[in-house]
Amino acid sequence: MSNNARESSIKAARARREPGSAATVKRNQVVDKAAELFDAAGYHNTGVADIAAAAGISKPTLYHYFAGKDEILFWIHEEFMEQLIARQEKRAQISMAPSACILELMTDMLEMTATRPGVRVFHEHLRELREDQQQLVRDKRERYQNMVEDVICEGVSSGELRPLDPRLTTLALFGMVNWAYQWFRPDGPLGSREIAYFFCDIFLQGLAVDRKPR
Amino acid sequence: MSNNARESSIKAARARREPGSAATVKRNQVVDKAAELFDAAGYHNTGVADIAAAAGISKPTLYHYFAGKDEILFWIHEEFMEQLIARQEKRAQISMAPSACILELMTDMLEMTATRPGVRVFHEHLRELREDQQQLVRDKRERYQNMVEDVICEGVSSGELRPLDPRLTTLALFGMVNWAYQWFRPDGPLGSREIAYFFCDIFLQGLAVDRKPR
Repeated sequence: MSNNARESSIKAARARREPGSAATVKRNQVVDKAAELFDAAGYHNTGVADIAAAAGISKPTLYHYFAGKDEILFWIHEEFMEQLIARQEKRAQISMAPSACILELMTDMLEMTATRPGVRVFHEHLRELREDQQQLVRDKRERYQNMVEDVICEGVSSGELRPLDPRLTTLALFGMVNWAYQWFRPDGPLGSREIAYFFCDIFLQGLAVDRKPR
Repeated sequence: MSNNARESSIKAARARREPGSAATVKRNQVVDKAAELFDAAGYHNTGVADIAAAAGISKPTLYHYFAGKDEILFWIHEEFMEQLIARQEKRAQISMAPSACILELMTDMLEMTATRPGVRVFHEHLRELREDQQQLVRDKRERYQNMVEDVICEGVSSGELRPLDPRLTTLALFGMVNWAYQWFRPDGPLGSREIAYFFCDIFLQGLAVDRKPR
């Protein structure tokens, strides 16, 4: 695809995602059905016909809403990142202790794992997107990672947290909560927020400055 | 496949994995090439013909060594788990402080991420195995998880670690180190052992009993 064709394809996809319109509501329904199928059968084993059938629409109707399966996948990636970013942006505008904010960040990621279909494809199928789509998602992931790093750096500045490498500390946090997509079960004994309490307790004590020698 | 056919298929696959033989050496070479291709192009985008070409053998020769692509995938899963289990079994036979053992466990997983091809398929493509193969791998993963839990429980008994839920604590550890397959780069500033030091420091301080009130 030429650069111009790519740009107009992305613009078209973004225009489709205008919030609030009836078409966006319909598209969200299709995306949710697709995400459930991807989780159950795998991205590669799910065809456009399967998605259309699950959403109760014809294949031509599906193609009216989406250029193809990879646009649905792109939509899933965009939605996840925009939700995570929007939640943290709201908190960044108010005054919240970094430790409290870290609990909320961990809760956000665990809650999405627990409640939203598509987490598996979100973690495992970035590389199936077109290069230009991948870049857009990577930019959002990088932006989000920087937001989390900022919270950790604030905790160091305020004296709450010890001064460790903020990027590697952020990757430790991401690992604890994101890995839950591999083992979390909705019928398990703990909900996402209880798990966040548990992990946050280990993480914050692990970063605390008031450390006695072991 | 009938149960009998399944059992004899698994027995045949296991017999193929007898260590030391010339055939096993050859098979390991094929598995390494396949793992590299899976990492680079994805499991679904790699065919048996690609693997044979990369290993410098014909397709019929490849089928002499492996029943198909899923047996190669099974072999990757088995190798990872057997290595992790063997390393921990050796340590379990000597006297080692639980905290020291936790550093070694974290190093094992990070080192495999850093040095061995196939980590991505190991984490993402368990479900592509046949049900009976999946069960064998799940049994080994469960066994390994129990071994790590035992180390954490020993740390609680010895007074080194505070008494948190050992399963959830183990999943926090797995998350920190296993997630590295998503971001570790061999040309990055830190090697796998340095990353293990860093994560283990957060993790052990997070579990330490000598906690002052925050």
